[in-house]
Amino acid sequence: MSGPQGQVAMTRRTSRDIRRANRFEVVRHIYATGPASRQEIAAESGLSFATVATVVSELLDFGVLRESSLEDSGGGRPRARLAVNPRRGWLIGVDIAETYVQVELLDLALTVTASVKEALHPEDNQPGAVVDHIVAGIDAVIGQAGIPRADVVGVGVSLPGQVDRAGGVSVFAPNFSWQAVPFIDLLRARVDLPLHLDNPLKASTVAELWFGAGRRADDIVVLTIGTGVGAGIAIGGSLIRGVTNCAGEWGHTAIVLDGRLCRCGNRGCVEAYVGAPAIMAQLRDLAPGSRLLHPEDQDLTLTELAAALGDGDEVADAVIDETARYLGVGIANLINTLNPAIIVLGGWVCERIGPWLLPAARATAARHTFDRTLAATSIELSTFTGNPVSRGAATFALEGFLAELGVPSRHDPSRPVASARR
Amino acid sequence: MSGPQGQVAMTRRTSRDIRRANRFEVVRHIYATGPASRQEIAAESGLSFATVATVVSELLDFGVLRESSLEDSGGGRPRARLAVNPRRGWLIGVDIAETYVQVELLDLALTVTASVKEALHPEDNQPGAVVDHIVAGIDAVIGQAGIPRADVVGVGVSLPGQVDRAGGVSVFAPNFSWQAVPFIDLLRARVDLPLHLDNPLKASTVAELWFGAGRRADDIVVLTIGTGVGAGIAIGGSLIRGVTNCAGEWGHTAIVLDGRLCRCGNRGCVEAYVGAPAIMAQLRDLAPGSRLLHPEDQDLTLTELAAALGDGDEVADAVIDETARYLGVGIANLINTLNPAIIVLGGWVCERIGPWLLPAARATAARHTFDRTLAATSIELSTFTGNPVSRGAATFALEGFLAELGVPSRHDPSRPVASARR
Repeated sequence: MSGPQGQVAMTRRTSRDIRRANRFEVVRHIYATGPASRQEIAAESGLSFATVATVVSELLDFGVLRESSLEDSGGGRPRARLAVNPRRGWLIGVDIAETYVQVELLDLALTVTASVKEALHPEDNQPGAVVDHIVAGIDAVIGQAGIPRADVVGVGVSLPGQVDRAGGVSVFAPNFSWQAVPFIDLLRARVDLPLHLDNPLKASTVAELWFGAGRRADDIVVLTIGTGVGAGIAIGGSLIRGVTNCAGEWGHTAIVLDGRLCRCGNRGCVEAYVGAPAIMAQLRDLAPGSRLLHPEDQDLTLTELAAALGDGDEVADAVIDETARYLGVGIANLINTLNPAIIVLGGWVCERIGPWLLPAARATAARHTFDRTLAATSIELSTFTGNPVSRGAATFALEGFLAELGVPSRHDPSRPVASARR
Repeated sequence: MSGPQGQVAMTRRTSRDIRRANRFEVVRHIYATGPASRQEIAAESGLSFATVATVVSELLDFGVLRESSLEDSGGGRPRARLAVNPRRGWLIGVDIAETYVQVELLDLALTVTASVKEALHPEDNQPGAVVDHIVAGIDAVIGQAGIPRADVVGVGVSLPGQVDRAGGVSVFAPNFSWQAVPFIDLLRARVDLPLHLDNPLKASTVAELWFGAGRRADDIVVLTIGTGVGAGIAIGGSLIRGVTNCAGEWGHTAIVLDGRLCRCGNRGCVEAYVGAPAIMAQLRDLAPGSRLLHPEDQDLTLTELAAALGDGDEVADAVIDETARYLGVGIANLINTLNPAIIVLGGWVCERIGPWLLPAARATAARHTFDRTLAATSIELSTFTGNPVSRGAATFALEGFLAELGVPSRHDPSRPVASARR
């Protein structure tokens, strides 16, 4: 990567990238459809039958897949159906949010087997304290499930803010006031498992891609609306990361030139109008003494706002209208730029008030898009059950595990596999 | 494609898509690097050597490639260098702009061999009249070059506005007041050659991908700033089309909520602040009687504005500052959303005043982006020589030709090949 005037790096796919992508694609289709034959995987994925057969053969050898049953192929040889072997290994997904750390243990079929969630207090969010929570959480879920630690094949960790995935560095986490924290190094000193770092926008988008809206479409945008606001973008079934893994900072695109001050220091950003603090501010502006407003508790305020909306409260309705006006424009900008099949509204704010925000935001978006583009886009609430961030983080660990299978180790064998990538 | 609440189409790659993509990738690398060995193509493209060898063998059989020379491989068998056979066929690229129709004839090495440009008068822009210009232009370039008409393997046509590429329909061309014009059908009644329709944003982005910024990076955004404003997006070396070929309507993303009225009927769009009519309006607002202003002639006004900037004219400087303030925010929104390696400023407005707009727009963009993202992005003027739109349109014809090579015809042999795709 280079500065504005310098040479720009050209990323080229290597044969290893292609093998990794093919493995991932085969496995993703089995997760999406359930047990499938080689013929079905080839037809669904567009990979050649020969490629599918090669990948399946490798994954059978490594014990990742197993032949689950035979089906009649209509006269010919019975076809084997392939499924993921859930006991081949275990994955851990970690969601570090502003107010909690959630650690989940999943089998290789991505079924959650154990989960712990610990509160993260504002005075408790220095890197060392967060590492302590992760270490305790990993020990707890392994203990709960009663599995050998050596059977965990990878840990995916989602950290808020901008993350240098390759280097394992938290570049910028504004809510924690972290800058350039070498988080994977800190964690590696305490956890002897392959580690993979990314952020919640990327993790929740991969979760939707594998288990949510992505089962119906390949071009999706997943919005996360909480205290912070952002988006994850997938095109052709692949996550768009950008050249420094920073794509999706939709929360900091400007919709009101010289508008309201945002936490990032700029003005007029989407986040400054639709994030939880903005919704609190709108409630305070409209009804300074409102019983719904709990200045120190965003979660309680949004929960009570949702209840008031159910009761037809006028102030609550006005807050929704105002928020949806900005949200709709932000959504329209994404539709105009990317023309996706689905825009998914997620994040804890949408869990609370999404059913009220959605129709109003959709109406605004319709006014700011061309008919043909709008007609092609479904704007909908996430239907993901469970925590998409920890689940998505676990899939990053799965991706790393699949990529490394059978690759000769180029590093000190006492160190975890993930370090080979740095 | 479906409405907001319906089923969403899942696009799946077929083996034919993959073969098409592989052929296109091999040929693109030869265009980018000049004559290359199979080994070099494999190393550069990331395709396996076996895939490259298969694709090259087919393309040699079809006469598209030829072995241009042998090089010493350092002791082993000499390696053949492969080049495109420029005389295998001819491509025609058509740029239909608001004020002219340009038709270019290119050999298969994409060297322009003949070119004609005819003015398109405002009263002369109904579909039938535009078809007449194209027919005359095609006859003219074939006549100039003295080639047999049957040797033309495809015609790519760029039409402004939204284009349904698969159906060959001009969905919406606001400047011509066209709605749902079945343009390819009209053209096919007069032109017995394979036809491919798309729009100038897509065409100029492919031109940059093959011959401009895309030779240095795979993730690029190409801005077109003229009377209309838009963007083309390429990720991983591939054009992002969106589910209905409408991606890139950046000109109609909102940056000023409830701001200036745009030609599209909405308010606050990028185009309403940085397109040529907006620049004219800013000049009129700042200096109503300015000698630079020619109300009926955008081109002359922008040309004189450029000359005045060279002379240090204060009004001209103020127009640039105002325009760049909005342009910079629009660019920042793209950087925040996509984190690309390069943003290219193109279009006729940038050809005139780009050198003055660029530094001011870059400074604004810097204030609206995170350091890490900004540092990864080069914002630069297009260095493309010639007309990127007609050149890009010709590459669409090339893409179609490569895709159809060796595919058994499924249609009436009296009809052109392109119709098989509808």
